[in-house]
Amino acid sequence: MTSRQDSRSVGIVQPQVARFDDPLLLACGRELSGFELVYETYGQLNASKSNAILICHALSGHHHAAGYHSESERKPGWWDECIGPGKPIDTQRFFVVSVNNIGGCHGSTGPKSINPETGKAWGPDFPSLRARDWVHSQARLADRLGIDCWAAVIGGSLGGMQAMRWSLEYPDRLKHCVVIAAALKLSAQNLAFNELARQAIFSDPAFEDGNYIYNGTVPSQGLSLARMVGHITYLSDEAMANKFGRELRAGSFELGDEDNIEFQVQSYLRYQGSQFSSQFDANTYILMTRALDYFDLAREYENDPVKAFTHASCSFLVMSFSTDWRFAPARSREIVDALIAANRPVTYAEIQADEGHDAFLMPIPRYLNAFSAYMQRVGGDS
Amino acid sequence: MTSRQDSRSVGIVQPQVARFDDPLLLACGRELSGFELVYETYGQLNASKSNAILICHALSGHHHAAGYHSESERKPGWWDECIGPGKPIDTQRFFVVSVNNIGGCHGSTGPKSINPETGKAWGPDFPSLRARDWVHSQARLADRLGIDCWAAVIGGSLGGMQAMRWSLEYPDRLKHCVVIAAALKLSAQNLAFNELARQAIFSDPAFEDGNYIYNGTVPSQGLSLARMVGHITYLSDEAMANKFGRELRAGSFELGDEDNIEFQVQSYLRYQGSQFSSQFDANTYILMTRALDYFDLAREYENDPVKAFTHASCSFLVMSFSTDWRFAPARSREIVDALIAANRPVTYAEIQADEGHDAFLMPIPRYLNAFSAYMQRVGGDS
Repeated sequence: MTSRQDSRSVGIVQPQVARFDDPLLLACGRELSGFELVYETYGQLNASKSNAILICHALSGHHHAAGYHSESERKPGWWDECIGPGKPIDTQRFFVVSVNNIGGCHGSTGPKSINPETGKAWGPDFPSLRARDWVHSQARLADRLGIDCWAAVIGGSLGGMQAMRWSLEYPDRLKHCVVIAAALKLSAQNLAFNELARQAIFSDPAFEDGNYIYNGTVPSQGLSLARMVGHITYLSDEAMANKFGRELRAGSFELGDEDNIEFQVQSYLRYQGSQFSSQFDANTYILMTRALDYFDLAREYENDPVKAFTHASCSFLVMSFSTDWRFAPARSREIVDALIAANRPVTYAEIQADEGHDAFLMPIPRYLNAFSAYMQRVGGDS
Repeated sequence: MTSRQDSRSVGIVQPQVARFDDPLLLACGRELSGFELVYETYGQLNASKSNAILICHALSGHHHAAGYHSESERKPGWWDECIGPGKPIDTQRFFVVSVNNIGGCHGSTGPKSINPETGKAWGPDFPSLRARDWVHSQARLADRLGIDCWAAVIGGSLGGMQAMRWSLEYPDRLKHCVVIAAALKLSAQNLAFNELARQAIFSDPAFEDGNYIYNGTVPSQGLSLARMVGHITYLSDEAMANKFGRELRAGSFELGDEDNIEFQVQSYLRYQGSQFSSQFDANTYILMTRALDYFDLAREYENDPVKAFTHASCSFLVMSFSTDWRFAPARSREIVDALIAANRPVTYAEIQADEGHDAFLMPIPRYLNAFSAYMQRVGGDS
């Protein structure tokens, strides 16, 4: 109970739903006749509505970024380390808005929602999405909340890519853009891991080309494998060595006991996979990994990120982590180099951390300090 | 046809089978009442039988390391770049023996072989194996061929680990040990990738706990996913970037064409997976990845590789490749450091190469030159 009353927690929070009835034209050319966004807010919007922060989530994220949904919830929101009173995104100063992306499976319009034209769930027919579609849908939410300009748009991983897209699509609607553990576009290796994850889902007979949603089955084996792929790439070699090494969970190398051998890391991966498969929607996973694959910040700017960023007018904070091999520091330096060449104000912090890509979710002192220091510069409630 | 008559090719080769009727006690405590080894030889054994080289294959390898089985065979053996007249393992000087490991699926006794006690294929009941079991079975083959002492035992990846095990199990039976792109034991990340590959196979309903072998099905989806996992780890980020980048094979980012998008790297991985699944046995894959997981050179030597190597009496060549992240140069340096501390003669070459783990199969000039130079020191036919 104490954590819910912790002075550094936003405490109990209540998700809200915003319904939009004007059509949303998507990048793929199709249209949603209307859509819903589920979101949470933490802190108070000031009178001038100048202290609003938008949080963009990563591949498998959602709107529940901080605090607890109930007294009994076991874990807080996914970015509770960074959002709360006295934390880098300080809810004593900022009004924080955290949205589930469309296409998601946590309440915003997505494959599990009803397609009004057919009266049944969209399922695999949900339109293909790009990061810019999320940006446009969130601009509608900003309109609804009366927020003309975000004090900052902030995200890690895919969320960081979305934040960069915000800076190009609505340059006048954000003052700061915080891009953590992201990249201008995926590498071939990144694409390969996403393909592996999707193939694992496609290979599950229960997936039925995404039609599982109509017949009560769930491709849990495929989704579990996909999550295992993800987990391996979120953790560094170092983090895995520190956390598991070659420790056995069962069996031994003694004569006759070998058939029972299970390494700790095996059991961890299986557990993570199984947990995830009971909570996430496979069609959403396919959709989100494709949006990630298709993201290429500079594609419409002659493939030149410098040209792209000349369209931005905010300031940037870029952060990366030394052992992140999914989106390595070199990928963040590409962002920084392009921003410098485009004459945009940019601060860059490369954090020494063993935790790999997952570091952006962790309470690493140098990370939180650098993040907090930058956020002091962002206009708050004053 | 020209390649078959190429002066640097061993030409057409014929696999041979050696049958052993004495029982082989395995590290797991079980026993094979007898076994067969399929192998190939290249070059001529000299009168003193002092010029024999043993090739140890990697996870999915086999005995066909060089030359062609027929005039029409499309590709030569897997290590044709390194074995042949004038190549690092020069068949004008050496008599080369290349064996399919027991547990394999290319002709040596393995899960597809008949268990004499049941009269049907071993399938999933084939005994658990360790690298030392391969070593012991190969020592029998050496006896059969009249080879008291190998001029060198050579292997890459899992084959390199097996070569190191040779140096401890039969210190008097090899003069040189060549260990390429290997490690003293797997890291937690290595274990994680192997677990992912096995789970992909287990998840395929056609696998049926390994009993597919009795009912004519093949877990090709699972095996294909497992191979995709392997391939991603065999190639470096750089190699994938050079080879595929973000090139599209189909579709485009033009409006309406997005549903057809396929990146080159996706299609490559799927092709590799599908090819492999038609050629390899799933029970063997499970068995081989477990042998790899369980390999730990120093386990029986108080977990001290220095203590382990004091039992060796041969000279060592250790090689690694700069972009190999499956068994990185740091892992080879651990081997070298232990050898130095154990007062064993060791030569180490760390090769700059973009090709990742797969580099050990590639015609990289600095690699072939360093390998050839070392092999000059190995007693040949003189």
